[in-house]
Amino acid sequence: MSTSVFEHPILSGLLGDAQIAEWFSTEREIDAMLRFESALAVVQEQAGVLPEGAAACIKQACRQFTPDMEALRAATLRDGVCVPELVRQLRAAVGEPFLSHVHFAATSQDVIDTALVLRMKPVLEDLALRLVALSEQLDEAKGRFGTNRLMGHTRMQQALPIRVADKLDTWRQPLADLLASLGSVKTRVLRLQYGGAVGTLDKLGDNKAEISARLALELGLANQGCWHTSRGPLVECANWLSQLSGALGKMGQDVALMAQNEVGEIKLSGSGGSSAMPHKQNPVSAEILVTLSRFNSTLLSGMHAALIHENERSGSAWTLEWMLLPQMVMGSAAGLRSASLLLGNMERIGTAEDSNDQ
Amino acid sequence: MSTSVFEHPILSGLLGDAQIAEWFSTEREIDAMLRFESALAVVQEQAGVLPEGAAACIKQACRQFTPDMEALRAATLRDGVCVPELVRQLRAAVGEPFLSHVHFAATSQDVIDTALVLRMKPVLEDLALRLVALSEQLDEAKGRFGTNRLMGHTRMQQALPIRVADKLDTWRQPLADLLASLGSVKTRVLRLQYGGAVGTLDKLGDNKAEISARLALELGLANQGCWHTSRGPLVECANWLSQLSGALGKMGQDVALMAQNEVGEIKLSGSGGSSAMPHKQNPVSAEILVTLSRFNSTLLSGMHAALIHENERSGSAWTLEWMLLPQMVMGSAAGLRSASLLLGNMERIGTAEDSNDQ
Amino acid sequence: MSTSVFEHPILSGLLGDAQIAEWFSTEREIDAMLRFESALAVVQEQAGVLPEGAAACIKQACRQFTPDMEALRAATLRDGVCVPELVRQLRAAVGEPFLSHVHFAATSQDVIDTALVLRMKPVLEDLALRLVALSEQLDEAKGRFGTNRLMGHTRMQQALPIRVADKLDTWRQPLADLLASLGSVKTRVLRLQYGGAVGTLDKLGDNKAEISARLALELGLANQGCWHTSRGPLVECANWLSQLSGALGKMGQDVALMAQNEVGEIKLSGSGGSSAMPHKQNPVSAEILVTLSRFNSTLLSGMHAALIHENERSGSAWTLEWMLLPQMVMGSAAGLRSASLLLGNMERIGTAEDSNDQ
Amino acid sequence: MSTSVFEHPILSGLLGDAQIAEWFSTEREIDAMLRFESALAVVQEQAGVLPEGAAACIKQACRQFTPDMEALRAATLRDGVCVPELVRQLRAAVGEPFLSHVHFAATSQDVIDTALVLRMKPVLEDLALRLVALSEQLDEAKGRFGTNRLMGHTRMQQALPIRVADKLDTWRQPLADLLASLGSVKTRVLRLQYGGAVGTLDKLGDNKAEISARLALELGLANQGCWHTSRGPLVECANWLSQLSGALGKMGQDVALMAQNEVGEIKLSGSGGSSAMPHKQNPVSAEILVTLSRFNSTLLSGMHAALIHENERSGSAWTLEWMLLPQMVMGSAAGLRSASLLLGNMERIGTAEDSNDQ
Repeated sequence: MSTSVFEHPILSGLLGDAQIAEWFSTEREIDAMLRFESALAVVQEQAGVLPEGAAACIKQACRQFTPDMEALRAATLRDGVCVPELVRQLRAAVGEPFLSHVHFAATSQDVIDTALVLRMKPVLEDLALRLVALSEQLDEAKGRFGTNRLMGHTRMQQALPIRVADKLDTWRQPLADLLASLGSVKTRVLRLQYGGAVGTLDKLGDNKAEISARLALELGLANQGCWHTSRGPLVECANWLSQLSGALGKMGQDVALMAQNEVGEIKLSGSGGSSAMPHKQNPVSAEILVTLSRFNSTLLSGMHAALIHENERSGSAWTLEWMLLPQMVMGSAAGLRSASLLLGNMERIGTAEDSNDQ
Repeated sequence: MSTSVFEHPILSGLLGDAQIAEWFSTEREIDAMLRFESALAVVQEQAGVLPEGAAACIKQACRQFTPDMEALRAATLRDGVCVPELVRQLRAAVGEPFLSHVHFAATSQDVIDTALVLRMKPVLEDLALRLVALSEQLDEAKGRFGTNRLMGHTRMQQALPIRVADKLDTWRQPLADLLASLGSVKTRVLRLQYGGAVGTLDKLGDNKAEISARLALELGLANQGCWHTSRGPLVECANWLSQLSGALGKMGQDVALMAQNEVGEIKLSGSGGSSAMPHKQNPVSAEILVTLSRFNSTLLSGMHAALIHENERSGSAWTLEWMLLPQMVMGSAAGLRSASLLLGNMERIGTAEDSNDQ
Repeated sequence: MSTSVFEHPILSGLLGDAQIAEWFSTEREIDAMLRFESALAVVQEQAGVLPEGAAACIKQACRQFTPDMEALRAATLRDGVCVPELVRQLRAAVGEPFLSHVHFAATSQDVIDTALVLRMKPVLEDLALRLVALSEQLDEAKGRFGTNRLMGHTRMQQALPIRVADKLDTWRQPLADLLASLGSVKTRVLRLQYGGAVGTLDKLGDNKAEISARLALELGLANQGCWHTSRGPLVECANWLSQLSGALGKMGQDVALMAQNEVGEIKLSGSGGSSAMPHKQNPVSAEILVTLSRFNSTLLSGMHAALIHENERSGSAWTLEWMLLPQMVMGSAAGLRSASLLLGNMERIGTAEDSNDQ
Repeated sequence: MSTSVFEHPILSGLLGDAQIAEWFSTEREIDAMLRFESALAVVQEQAGVLPEGAAACIKQACRQFTPDMEALRAATLRDGVCVPELVRQLRAAVGEPFLSHVHFAATSQDVIDTALVLRMKPVLEDLALRLVALSEQLDEAKGRFGTNRLMGHTRMQQALPIRVADKLDTWRQPLADLLASLGSVKTRVLRLQYGGAVGTLDKLGDNKAEISARLALELGLANQGCWHTSRGPLVECANWLSQLSGALGKMGQDVALMAQNEVGEIKLSGSGGSSAMPHKQNPVSAEILVTLSRFNSTLLSGMHAALIHENERSGSAWTLEWMLLPQMVMGSAAGLRSASLLLGNMERIGTAEDSNDQ
């Protein structure tokens, strides 16, 4: 029990994922924000909007910058977002004559959203690699156990026998679909956010198209216009995460059912013990996949609720995203980790055809 | 107040959509089921699995079939699904010598899922047409009011002025994105369901690939394998519906805020009256868009929960889909209807530049 | 598949409940609204706010009133609520000289909310009776099978043997808790709604306390002040309904697990057949309990979202309640019906102690 | 952006609550677990189930115990719960001859659930105190501004004038209701969990009633029987937390609407600035109340989903509670903190009657 299982000293062993959690650390987050501010200065100077020398000075300051965390925290309570204070600190670090050129024609949401997206890039790449690895584990299991027989069950009753390969295919197919659809999710979400105060970049005048294009390029992101209030891309990402958790949850539920003592269609090693009954072998990783799936399907609803951003920027809906999306990423990452563990522990699935004990 | 607003004699005027509701009528549903059974017989005879003459006889029986609804209803309480009784009735109608060839190598889920998908096809096409029409209404509004000025608001406070065109673009962009992504949703969901008792079509032996391919072709659906327990396609569809509702909800929320007496950035005709205050002009259609969005974002969570289908078929998760997806379709359809009404009632947005009253 | 399973000609056999659905019919709803208008006139005349004779005339008109449903439907699209048009029709029926006294100092929300509560009264009483009956069925099952042995399972693995009585107690306890808490739910929700245009009843001047008290008495409801924007009472009711569904869902899940062929801890009669596998005995009623629980736990989230009523009345949040609460009532009622059916079908639970086949 | 805003170095300033978070620290959690183990030994020795001297020795070991956190973390990945390893460590600390008497006739869930409840006690007391304080702030605001006039709004349109006192009453009433219902929530949830391996305490034989009663007394909790699978009490608590957030969210939404520049019915000090528009005064605390309400209403759905505990203990549903309930507590606590801040910043509500500027 803890505020967040993902950061809980004990439970994060079961439900967390250190590798992905790292991307949501404050260090990485501030790094990404500074990357935005730095790149912004560079392209603005290139476009002649900032005076010569400004970009180099700002870039240098970003590199050496150490935030005053306590001040950021206090200011966020007042401002609802850390950017005004971060910019203030950064300007102080830049000093004259260029301090006023920091964060030029940008708004808090540009920084926060782009900094999120910059980190979602490696996160989604990592999840994709794990999906591939998990698919390979399933292929390997198919190689080992695919021809074994298994009783098929429908509506919680024995139906007709199938092959283990049939079962593994039903687990693997959704992963293939998810890998296939990840491309379009990435296209949608890995995009620059840059709209200025009210999404129109009016301060940049005729330079706005050029600067946006250069900035996107500099940051390795797509340039598809401002999305301050069009949160479809983030929601698409959340959908994908919840579908991933659901696919893993289905596998976990199947394993928990197959591993029942009375059913015995699967034999797991490394299962969990009980404080009251040392003889037990609990299918913990399988159960956790169900848990994580229910967690993400629950949270997803809030991400869709947050599609209603009022006017040109919503404080309340935007903040709701901050409370939900990182947790959904963690839920999916922890699921991939648990699923891999679970597959690694499968000592037997189904029964060899020539066996007589079925 | 009623069990379902979508079928409520009074409230369906506000929250329903007769055109889409039609596709969820029992008549259309049974028609679609019979289309499956009929097409199945045709392709099975072509593949030599049914004796000559069986398909013609079954097809003819399907055409003339009148279900005994009371028996279907009673049997569904027992079986959890109407197909066993429907097949029994249909077999009785076919009579000897072909009655045993009805529903050959098929299972209830093949019939129900395919019958759903056959109706989702015209439903999604209808929604797409409405999305196009709505986009055109927005274009037209842009033509009329696009150069007007409007105060931009962020975090519920006045920020900086924008043009009406800027605002309309933020409403229109998500609709364009939804139209663009509908293609892949349709590719995913408009697919044949045919897997037989446990998803393996074992009864068809070597003919299974051919028969599936022909059946899909006959029904105008994609042939991407059995998805009895891989509910990603339906969930993809639900995601899309909820994103659509969310995009419309954002527009509705903006209009309700802009139409406040104190703000007056929009003037609506045809607004609703009050039983206590006849002077009022309530932005009913705008409010309803917010309602429908919250409704769909709520229900979506259950569709993702239903990804956990146990084993080869889940009675409980599958039934949950029946309770949620049609309502989500209705929610989106009603939203498109309300949005169109709302746009049709916009008499003025923003203020002409040369006006002095801003 | 249908827009609403609760009103679906076929599926309502499985998932509906005719007895409770009746209370959400338009007829009952309009009756309840007229009861409000009629009682309002009576107590207002008693308080001297209406002229002598007005109440008798209005009461009489309410008794003979036949609404023009098409006009109600059309007006609701415009007004967002049917009351302005209903009052218009009712005034026409009352005629001079009393027509202006109909709906005096009342607003739409007074009528709709009170009409809901007037029907929730018999609905909650009905559900309570069913809870009692279900508890008795459990007691009877305990009488028959209580001393039988059963394998206890934790984390989906065999743990230690228990008695059937132990299992039945875990099903029965939450029902007793729900019966115990129903009292406070009823106290909260069975209350008059009467606040007038903006919740202050200013039009009634010094008479407002007296008229509210009399009106509540006349309608058999509690008088706890206006709750136009304090939706806690309805949400309390929704919580209770979802907890009820959850308690039944836990029982259904247990039964589905116990009824697995490999486990065989329960023997059910009357189970469902399959179109592909006539040998099967599907635990349909048990599965449906899980479905209904997931349905209600999903919808509940929207009821809590609707706590955010803006200002003195929210069109969007209020309408969302209409879309969710009646369905939650139906979900709970259908659950009680299914649970009773399920218990009636239990031929054996566990194994007699002297049996050797365990 | 971070995995959890409640533990985020920056965002927890805005969205967290240090005082309540403390109760969910690992230190407090392990303390509470040891309190259970210690009290269990004491009452078991009193009942003659443990040999003389065992309790003193176990109690002493609990007092001096320092857990090996890394081992707890690793074991939790295997066992799904930290208790087996914690007991192993504690037994090692106790040593012979009493080590086997540690955790006698108890199971992991007894420890975890009771340790949660022991901390929910001060948590709920703290929230109650804040509710009282908030109500007093509202009373004070009523004293200062109650006679001021305010435009009432229904369906987002001006309706009729009200008094500020009327508005404040609509904010205050739900807080009074929540305080009134907290009593029954506490009665339900502040209860001992003690059921042993499968909820029957069979190991204790005839002593079980006495030991349970003494243990509850020792820990200051109610003794209402084992609730391993009857999660109603926790869900009741979650309902209450979400209703609290909803009541605060309604207040926040109202304030955000009233604080609009064009409306100006409220004047706030200490509002947030913008990085792009220094002139702005964003009603951050008000927005956050809406955010936290949507967060809790979203998560609540998962708590209700977790009512379906399979059999005698569910790994997956139980773990889901761990992921949701502490966050809901934090959401409510942060809401109370924000609401208090917001009320403290209200410089003016409405307009004095004799003022001419309305």
